[in-house]
Amino acid sequence: MERLRIGVIGLGWFGEIHCETIVGVPNLELAALCTRTPERLDAMAAKFGVSKTYRDYHDLLADPEIDAVSIVTMWDQHTEPAVAALAAGKHVFLEKPMASTVPDCESILAAAAKAEGILLVGHICRFNPRYRMAKQAIEKGTIGRIVSLSSRRNIPAAWTPEILNKIGPIVGDAIHDTDLMLWFTGDRVVSTYAQTVDVRGLKHPDIGQTMYRFAGGATATLETVWCMPEHTPFDIDERMTVIGTEGFLHIQDTFPNLGIVSADAFHSPDTTYWPEFDGVRGGALREEFTYFAHCALTGAQPQIGRPEDAMRALEATLAAEESARTGEVVRLA
Amino acid sequence: MERLRIGVIGLGWFGEIHCETIVGVPNLELAALCTRTPERLDAMAAKFGVSKTYRDYHDLLADPEIDAVSIVTMWDQHTEPAVAALAAGKHVFLEKPMASTVPDCESILAAAAKAEGILLVGHICRFNPRYRMAKQAIEKGTIGRIVSLSSRRNIPAAWTPEILNKIGPIVGDAIHDTDLMLWFTGDRVVSTYAQTVDVRGLKHPDIGQTMYRFAGGATATLETVWCMPEHTPFDIDERMTVIGTEGFLHIQDTFPNLGIVSADAFHSPDTTYWPEFDGVRGGALREEFTYFAHCALTGAQPQIGRPEDAMRALEATLAAEESARTGEVVRLA
Amino acid sequence: MERLRIGVIGLGWFGEIHCETIVGVPNLELAALCTRTPERLDAMAAKFGVSKTYRDYHDLLADPEIDAVSIVTMWDQHTEPAVAALAAGKHVFLEKPMASTVPDCESILAAAAKAEGILLVGHICRFNPRYRMAKQAIEKGTIGRIVSLSSRRNIPAAWTPEILNKIGPIVGDAIHDTDLMLWFTGDRVVSTYAQTVDVRGLKHPDIGQTMYRFAGGATATLETVWCMPEHTPFDIDERMTVIGTEGFLHIQDTFPNLGIVSADAFHSPDTTYWPEFDGVRGGALREEFTYFAHCALTGAQPQIGRPEDAMRALEATLAAEESARTGEVVRLA
Amino acid sequence: MERLRIGVIGLGWFGEIHCETIVGVPNLELAALCTRTPERLDAMAAKFGVSKTYRDYHDLLADPEIDAVSIVTMWDQHTEPAVAALAAGKHVFLEKPMASTVPDCESILAAAAKAEGILLVGHICRFNPRYRMAKQAIEKGTIGRIVSLSSRRNIPAAWTPEILNKIGPIVGDAIHDTDLMLWFTGDRVVSTYAQTVDVRGLKHPDIGQTMYRFAGGATATLETVWCMPEHTPFDIDERMTVIGTEGFLHIQDTFPNLGIVSADAFHSPDTTYWPEFDGVRGGALREEFTYFAHCALTGAQPQIGRPEDAMRALEATLAAEESARTGEVVRLA
Repeated sequence: MERLRIGVIGLGWFGEIHCETIVGVPNLELAALCTRTPERLDAMAAKFGVSKTYRDYHDLLADPEIDAVSIVTMWDQHTEPAVAALAAGKHVFLEKPMASTVPDCESILAAAAKAEGILLVGHICRFNPRYRMAKQAIEKGTIGRIVSLSSRRNIPAAWTPEILNKIGPIVGDAIHDTDLMLWFTGDRVVSTYAQTVDVRGLKHPDIGQTMYRFAGGATATLETVWCMPEHTPFDIDERMTVIGTEGFLHIQDTFPNLGIVSADAFHSPDTTYWPEFDGVRGGALREEFTYFAHCALTGAQPQIGRPEDAMRALEATLAAEESARTGEVVRLA
Repeated sequence: MERLRIGVIGLGWFGEIHCETIVGVPNLELAALCTRTPERLDAMAAKFGVSKTYRDYHDLLADPEIDAVSIVTMWDQHTEPAVAALAAGKHVFLEKPMASTVPDCESILAAAAKAEGILLVGHICRFNPRYRMAKQAIEKGTIGRIVSLSSRRNIPAAWTPEILNKIGPIVGDAIHDTDLMLWFTGDRVVSTYAQTVDVRGLKHPDIGQTMYRFAGGATATLETVWCMPEHTPFDIDERMTVIGTEGFLHIQDTFPNLGIVSADAFHSPDTTYWPEFDGVRGGALREEFTYFAHCALTGAQPQIGRPEDAMRALEATLAAEESARTGEVVRLA
Repeated sequence: MERLRIGVIGLGWFGEIHCETIVGVPNLELAALCTRTPERLDAMAAKFGVSKTYRDYHDLLADPEIDAVSIVTMWDQHTEPAVAALAAGKHVFLEKPMASTVPDCESILAAAAKAEGILLVGHICRFNPRYRMAKQAIEKGTIGRIVSLSSRRNIPAAWTPEILNKIGPIVGDAIHDTDLMLWFTGDRVVSTYAQTVDVRGLKHPDIGQTMYRFAGGATATLETVWCMPEHTPFDIDERMTVIGTEGFLHIQDTFPNLGIVSADAFHSPDTTYWPEFDGVRGGALREEFTYFAHCALTGAQPQIGRPEDAMRALEATLAAEESARTGEVVRLA
Repeated sequence: MERLRIGVIGLGWFGEIHCETIVGVPNLELAALCTRTPERLDAMAAKFGVSKTYRDYHDLLADPEIDAVSIVTMWDQHTEPAVAALAAGKHVFLEKPMASTVPDCESILAAAAKAEGILLVGHICRFNPRYRMAKQAIEKGTIGRIVSLSSRRNIPAAWTPEILNKIGPIVGDAIHDTDLMLWFTGDRVVSTYAQTVDVRGLKHPDIGQTMYRFAGGATATLETVWCMPEHTPFDIDERMTVIGTEGFLHIQDTFPNLGIVSADAFHSPDTTYWPEFDGVRGGALREEFTYFAHCALTGAQPQIGRPEDAMRALEATLAAEESARTGEVVRLA
């Protein structure tokens, strides 16, 4: 088998981006699509020229010509399809957050332990070359012992009204930085305190500020603002600073990287995560799928995107959200 | 009276910088110096050509030819000289933090209420033109209602071992950003949570991360790292972002403003606060003394550097330090 | 004499800014105003509370109660008032460019040589603390021998239609960087090649790119674009890099210093040159006037803003404009 | 044929990087190696586990099991192997500069016109996602008509002593920006003026500053300094600004993207062009090889990296070098 035949389950805006990415990965074949909505299913099948279409993922999983699935359903609807796909012997690419509760993560982990296929959770930032280079430097001891971290991941208000009715900025976005911080420190979060601000009266608050204490003593702040004003030049204002005893590192994945001023506005379009060129997505998302395909085809368990790590990141952000609700520090076992 | 005759009480490194600044302000005359250490007193008198020298500030205050004093003693030794100077009818420029306890601030405020002279607390950042322009924009409504703030004020490890035996980074430096945030929001802090990290085993921890909740609902994080590794290019890594409902503002008072790479290192020297040109200090410190002299000569109460504001900033940072010590959220009345 | 009584000749937009600055300098008194337009004269007299008003500068120069003048007439109308003011024994602050021809500069220099008063040409960038700190570092040998320089000074199209009917971007703006490069290198320009682009069909082309060769071998490029598109976030996009054999320095006097996003646009307002706070101008322009007043009151010849230097800067930019017109390299004697 | 079997001709430092990249491209197989030096050949064969090794490229070209070659010989030794490889029916990936003279480029173009295989010239910057996104925006008309461009591509002195004995910074590096400017404008260079500075007395001067005039009237400056002082934080200081009538775009592919401060120094390592992760190279070089493999396997002529474009870029930089030698403007037919 030289190409992995993959089906995408869940065809919202990000499921479509998965498809646009998969078609550019040489050893992946976009072989099946699945969503409950018939119109959307037809439209996507036509767009990507895919003949196998399913409204029920169980049918897709029953198809022996499908080797792998990418699960891009709502974050609180990950567990059932993930467990079923693993049980069906498929390789599974599961979007982040891994699930919406820690017990759900444990169910998925249990299924993965018995599965033939591999399981990779899509913590895409680990495929951003800046963070990956940072991790490499940290492992070499370049900055010594990590003592302090801070991150920002702020996005325009215009993007979020729909999302904010499904998920909040801490579990939705600070989970990226939480995962990176856990990766960089090789440590675990022992307590968290967080504050949110409800600006627009949507289901979840628009702003989260989170603080962590790590077991080894390091401290961290994480900023996630999902209501950046209209004229923000930063499509994502994404920064992280990691301070060690011997050195530090700083990542800024936004302007001045690339700034485009048009007759209407100033933007810093994404060139890191899933930039589109000629209808195909590149960037970290392509790297992630290439890595997934490589692991699946060679039978190697992924070392990046491990479900155990994804569960820890979820646990910390859920604790942060609890802190924001209760106003108290939340300690983790 | 066209020039204000001023004496400096306290001649440590920053007292000397006060002197180097005062000599460049047209309507100030550096007329007297005071410190307990005779050698230092002689050296400074010679350097600045000042003939009136005192080892006891009471003697300086008794001199009718002195109109004003600048108090640059240790932060926990501000109260007595400030109260005495106000009682003696002098105009008083008092360095920040205003004092080391809220009751001490109240004593100074009480003395100021009865005094003939003016009292200005040296919250120098308000004279940084970037923050001042920001305040002006906020007052015009440019960014709408403030919902989220974050700041960083990190300095090299080499600067701090001596300071850290006297004061910690939250009261010592986050007080600047606390004061600015109170100024920008026009609000008060209702609760705080903070974490510190002790890196080098000095009297105070090297790192502070602070979170505030404001009465109006805004949230804030403040980062102060006093142990930035040796090769940091930022002499001060100073940034603030203030996010409102209509817009936001971002201040970065470090590289790439000015970066100087020498044969040995990369530096971003201060050009904002007290840059030295031909032996005289300019920048915000000169602006502050010019404003002080102007107020004193015209009899106007300062609107920038008000002691009531300085007390509120101190109160919030002391509460943050208490939170860091206890591990609990501290609520302010 | 403790305050210098100064009159402003020329009350266009920048003459008004001179006035707004002078009123904030302790040892200057804004004592007289002069312009040919009666309505403007009345309006400015009312705004600044100045009782001495003149429509002919000869009358102002005849007034023995005026110690100094600031000349802010059109750049090609500098020579006569400057020579007359020097002949009348006034101290002279002359805006840049010094004049519109080298022979005119020589006339002014000859008048200055015989004058009692001082003459300072307003090359304001030398009072920008970033450039001044850079000069100090260069003089200490921090970067070794200078081998390469480059600069940018770009401004929004909306500012320039009127100016471009009077002066072009090379003589109008690259003269700042030319003066700084001459200051930094301590050298002279031996040849220049320049290209312009006429974008809007105004009297002068909107864009100039200039290259210099210095006598000591260093090379330089200077970019001046006076038609930056509407949504540029940079009110002035101002940068300079100076590369030496041992080190280099980089100055960036624009965003991210201060960025303000409003409901309408993103701006980086000036906080360096003449920021306005409470109706009074600060920044480098105030520093420049303070220095001018100090020199005039103490009788010291200015070491910054020397007319000889200003003439060399003009000479180089006029040669660059000639090159742009002819398409050939222009060599200087 | 699902994988393209490729041989690398020329195994200097960059030939090795080609190999480290090829091994990470799914549809490429690193199948042969060729260099004249036996020790190097053995070492590289061992490192990459390649069994087919050749000391004479003619032998490699005679091997029917090789589908494609990557030519990474010295820039002035490109023509013969490129022509021979095309004549032998191989697909050819040819490093930039395409050749060392325009007639040589024409020979290669003539060979390509008759060839079965495709020819791609490795102008890697076109695969940098920032430039590619910029090109896409320009094509959509986002910035209107281009009127002015400027670029910088400066590298540390420590990297260049050996290179500077083979090639100078204008043909060696400004060719990247020349190619990008030609791509962005869709125009051609009609004249050039350039200045170089010889700092270290190597075969080629260390510094080049180049100016272009495009047929449509746009103007450009290009800075290439190959002697950046030791403590430069920029491994590559790479920037470009493209100004149009309606908007502009700005690319900065260096710090603050990623900065790493260690105990010894401050660096901005490359994460764009050929970052190494676990011994395999990613970034733009992998994109370029993936694109090459895709075109070769599908039989499509590359639209990016076209030899006609590469010849035009070479022609302009050679003219700039001639201008630097003669001191005169060089006009292109």
